[in-house]
Amino acid sequence: MINISFPDGAVRQYENGVSALDIAKSISEGLARKVLAASVNGQVWDATRPIYNDAALKLLTWDDADGKSTFWHSSAHLMAEAVESLFPGVKFWVGPALDKGFYYDMDLGDKKLSEEDLAKLEKKMNELAKQGSIYIRKEIPKAEAIAYFAEKGDEYKLDLLNNLNDGEITFYTQGNFTDLCRGPHIPNTSFIKAIKLTNIAGAYWKGDEKNKQLTRVYGVTFPNQKELDEYLLMLEEAKKRDHRKLGKELGIYTMDDDVGQGLPLWMPNGTIIIEELEKLAKETESAAGYKRVVTPHIAKESMYLTSGHLPYYADSMFPPMEMDGEKYYLKAMNCPHHHKIFAAEPKSYRDLPYRIAEYGTCYRYEQSGELFGLMRVRCLHMNDAHIYCTKEQFFQEFKAVNDMYLKYFKIFGIEKYVMRLSLHNPEKLGQKYVNEPELWKETEEMVRKVLIETGTPFIEVQDEAAFYGPKIDVQIWSAIGREFTLATNQVDFNSGRKFKLEYTTQNNDSDVPLIIHRAPLGTHERFIGFLLEHYAGKFPVWLAPLQVKILPISEKFAVYTDHVLRALQNKGVRVEIDERNEKIGKKIREAELSRVPYMLVIGEKEMNENRLSVRRQGKGDLGSQSVDEFINTIVDEIEQRKTVE
Amino acid sequence: MINISFPDGAVRQYENGVSALDIAKSISEGLARKVLAASVNGQVWDATRPIYNDAALKLLTWDDADGKSTFWHSSAHLMAEAVESLFPGVKFWVGPALDKGFYYDMDLGDKKLSEEDLAKLEKKMNELAKQGSIYIRKEIPKAEAIAYFAEKGDEYKLDLLNNLNDGEITFYTQGNFTDLCRGPHIPNTSFIKAIKLTNIAGAYWKGDEKNKQLTRVYGVTFPNQKELDEYLLMLEEAKKRDHRKLGKELGIYTMDDDVGQGLPLWMPNGTIIIEELEKLAKETESAAGYKRVVTPHIAKESMYLTSGHLPYYADSMFPPMEMDGEKYYLKAMNCPHHHKIFAAEPKSYRDLPYRIAEYGTCYRYEQSGELFGLMRVRCLHMNDAHIYCTKEQFFQEFKAVNDMYLKYFKIFGIEKYVMRLSLHNPEKLGQKYVNEPELWKETEEMVRKVLIETGTPFIEVQDEAAFYGPKIDVQIWSAIGREFTLATNQVDFNSGRKFKLEYTTQNNDSDVPLIIHRAPLGTHERFIGFLLEHYAGKFPVWLAPLQVKILPISEKFAVYTDHVLRALQNKGVRVEIDERNEKIGKKIREAELSRVPYMLVIGEKEMNENRLSVRRQGKGDLGSQSVDEFINTIVDEIEQRKTVE
Repeated sequence: MINISFPDGAVRQYENGVSALDIAKSISEGLARKVLAASVNGQVWDATRPIYNDAALKLLTWDDADGKSTFWHSSAHLMAEAVESLFPGVKFWVGPALDKGFYYDMDLGDKKLSEEDLAKLEKKMNELAKQGSIYIRKEIPKAEAIAYFAEKGDEYKLDLLNNLNDGEITFYTQGNFTDLCRGPHIPNTSFIKAIKLTNIAGAYWKGDEKNKQLTRVYGVTFPNQKELDEYLLMLEEAKKRDHRKLGKELGIYTMDDDVGQGLPLWMPNGTIIIEELEKLAKETESAAGYKRVVTPHIAKESMYLTSGHLPYYADSMFPPMEMDGEKYYLKAMNCPHHHKIFAAEPKSYRDLPYRIAEYGTCYRYEQSGELFGLMRVRCLHMNDAHIYCTKEQFFQEFKAVNDMYLKYFKIFGIEKYVMRLSLHNPEKLGQKYVNEPELWKETEEMVRKVLIETGTPFIEVQDEAAFYGPKIDVQIWSAIGREFTLATNQVDFNSGRKFKLEYTTQNNDSDVPLIIHRAPLGTHERFIGFLLEHYAGKFPVWLAPLQVKILPISEKFAVYTDHVLRALQNKGVRVEIDERNEKIGKKIREAELSRVPYMLVIGEKEMNENRLSVRRQGKGDLGSQSVDEFINTIVDEIEQRKTVE
Repeated sequence: MINISFPDGAVRQYENGVSALDIAKSISEGLARKVLAASVNGQVWDATRPIYNDAALKLLTWDDADGKSTFWHSSAHLMAEAVESLFPGVKFWVGPALDKGFYYDMDLGDKKLSEEDLAKLEKKMNELAKQGSIYIRKEIPKAEAIAYFAEKGDEYKLDLLNNLNDGEITFYTQGNFTDLCRGPHIPNTSFIKAIKLTNIAGAYWKGDEKNKQLTRVYGVTFPNQKELDEYLLMLEEAKKRDHRKLGKELGIYTMDDDVGQGLPLWMPNGTIIIEELEKLAKETESAAGYKRVVTPHIAKESMYLTSGHLPYYADSMFPPMEMDGEKYYLKAMNCPHHHKIFAAEPKSYRDLPYRIAEYGTCYRYEQSGELFGLMRVRCLHMNDAHIYCTKEQFFQEFKAVNDMYLKYFKIFGIEKYVMRLSLHNPEKLGQKYVNEPELWKETEEMVRKVLIETGTPFIEVQDEAAFYGPKIDVQIWSAIGREFTLATNQVDFNSGRKFKLEYTTQNNDSDVPLIIHRAPLGTHERFIGFLLEHYAGKFPVWLAPLQVKILPISEKFAVYTDHVLRALQNKGVRVEIDERNEKIGKKIREAELSRVPYMLVIGEKEMNENRLSVRRQGKGDLGSQSVDEFINTIVDEIEQRKTVE
């Protein structure tokens, strides 16, 4: 018998060689039908794989990231089986799971896949899935593995085998398809109930453009049709809301070859949004006791040797500029510059917590193939700040940061969010993690307490903390249910020492402050990209580049129109007049399309009564209002930063 | 007889060989006593040099920059004469005039000059000046010149002679001193009536640290004692107001070795000033119809090849970063990025004038020896904007820019300023100047008209325009009378074409816009450096990092003190409480020293009567005010951006 311990702390005894699936069945058949894989002592295994020793077990279902990932990896194998049955002779490279779905890279010889082929493949996959073929794991000697793929003539798998050691090689077989694979996989193909192949792309073998171009087929699968339908609907909506398309249509940003890839130029409309976001951040941070600083975009090599970013992080930084015999780097993060400001004047416990904020612009090197609109860029305007505090102040400071996130979520109508709390692994202290066992325990406990006390949804992830302290990755979902990583929140008990930051304690000793890194609004680039999708370009009034468009029916009303314009401008409202000699219907239609929140139609009646005919984007006519009435409404809406209902 | 034409257009006939001084004497003896040199056909000449051809003549006095410069260059010769008489055997390198004063580099062998030596030299110079020795110009064959300095054993002058051609070499002699010199000089030494040698420094020969270090003696001279006294007083005051000293004391900025030279980090107090200046600029520019943009700090080499900054301006730029086989440069100016934004969307005449503004951060390479506090830096936050307009719109646009300058001068209490208008030279069209004779004429005329119509003080300088259009350098004087170059204002009829900028005209043709480059507040670095001196660190309330300090007499009044604090904070006033357990006298003294504009003393009486005892920095007790009364006063003072009286 072996001892199996469960996440709730319970420990039960089972026959040696029991599988996770057996254990699930022993609990309930319903549970067993949902088990996709299992975490065994922290490693993800096939649910069907026998367990021969005492183990900590977690059953993984569709609700677990690792469960989904296993499901999609198995779906890639299912797709490969279908491809091989329709296009015999195909050779396969790799087929990993993605954040959402999977792909497989394959060499189809001269065959070009068409949309029709995808439909055929989907049909075949559905057939094969229904057969419920079991995914069979087999450990295999290297020589045998080589012989198998040599016979098959698949040089890609042979290349993979080159880098594997004898004794660690496994094959997985389902139905008529066998693949070299580390696994794990789901129990059988019948779990896969809904299938969509989404895209065909070219991909150079090993990502190197000197190599042959393979065919990459993307797909996504689900355990039921309803989820697939919802997902496809979301994709369709996301396409309409594509931030690159909206960004161009609305004059938010542009890219230019002479400037460089991944370096957005913010157009006037985008700059208005940037400035509104910065205004919000400055107000919020000022009320929370932050001071502001401005630091250069470069620093000498010595700075990043001290911080430890060099040499380890060099690949993510821009290359150096060599000047006066020194190397200068574009900053990839603001922390070291902020630490220098902390250090510039002597500090005492009275100066703590010392909170300094900056919308700092950082530059990070991303491979050009990874760049994507505003989502993956090389220039990042970061809502950054660093809090230097004592251990005693930490809980309160971390809670205040968390509260700031929640406040922002409310303002932007972000209803779904999860804090992903990454913890250290006590076994790796002094190696992967700075050797401060007490500080790790205390700060992790305090961070957890903040999340629990504030009712903030969170998950815990073992062994994924930063080197220098626990961290929180903030995941948010847009209005159409797409997930984005917004920002990271980090505790840091290492940089203080590295930069020799000190404060005088009440006892006249000297101590090193704890540091909190935080950036609740992430970067302008990613956040505005997110907001474009989230609002479908229909920004709430306070963020809208143009807030009001005045639509006079004829130029006869120019004097009154101008009076309304000026009354609104005096209140700081962003307003324009459509002075063109066009039919009012056309003016309204075009204003609607431009997504301006309010339209004011002005004709004879409005002028005579000193009133306005008010229209709201997407909602039509709101009826007649006096000028003052409208001004009060819109000014209130702007000042309160009301979200779109 | 020859024809001499004067600046007022008058033309008179004189004997051939007449000198400018003769001509001045023929007008009045008083005038002749003031003539230091003359501009003859645009070249500065000795006033005593005979004129043999028809010429355009301008007599130069102490009121002309070239007059002053000649005066100081002659003073350098006078100093050299004094040095040679006190330290025979001295060898001389060069002795130019400076913006203010002059220096001479000399090799004194083993002799180290002391302060006492300077006093002796001053005395000697006064003696020699009184002798009224004439500066005698003599053209001299190269061989003879070489023989003279060879005999004297002066290898430095021989080195200079190496690079001169026979036929263009002149000597100047006054009293017992002869120098190799291009001239010009003042008529005689008696013009120099007040002398101060200000500084001794080391200077490597030819600025190369591998060469011998020479002794550099700085001095300044004036045509009367009063001006010297005023100047020395100003220097003393400037020392007290040194922006580097104040910048540290007031927590405005810091520098750090790991960040790099010439790269200020703005501390919280400096950042408040930055943000107030940006707020002012944004309000002003928004009211003037500017839109805002945000652009990256880097661009590819191709951008600067298009703009023409590469290769010509490369020495003033940071070296490139090589990435993905491309060269990226830190931007040294914002214009090319702005042009790209103009070009990103098609423009019609309806979109013009198109005005885009950005507080853009630029990086320029300055030699480390040239760096000086905030005045000469490598990172510049520039109050930049570009106006794209038609020729018809130019006058109005340029006038609006000029008005903005005047508005700012008023806000900052800048009472003395001069616009230095640099014009082209029609003879150099197509070489030094872009070949657009009509555009030059028209825009220069319009710029001049703006300056005249608005009563803006200005001077015209021939043949100093930019390649692509006329420019204005804006000179301002601080409260203690020191001159600063604030900003440059340029007309540009070249970049539009280079960047293929176009707009559709009313006739459906395509045309290239004129561009105005302007930055009325210059850079944060220089402007805040200027303001520190200008205000002696005593900023007007709207700019003061801390606006109010509350000084409770005892902690017994904590509740009331806190109520006052919050009432002020609610109105956006930057306020702090001095909660220390110290005597009120000490609290007041320290608050005064910290230069906070308002101090509110709170004791029993104030609390009971809901009043405040108000003190103004540098002015003492303003008496008792109710809380509301004080709030109204200070809020008004801030909103109106009142200058310090």
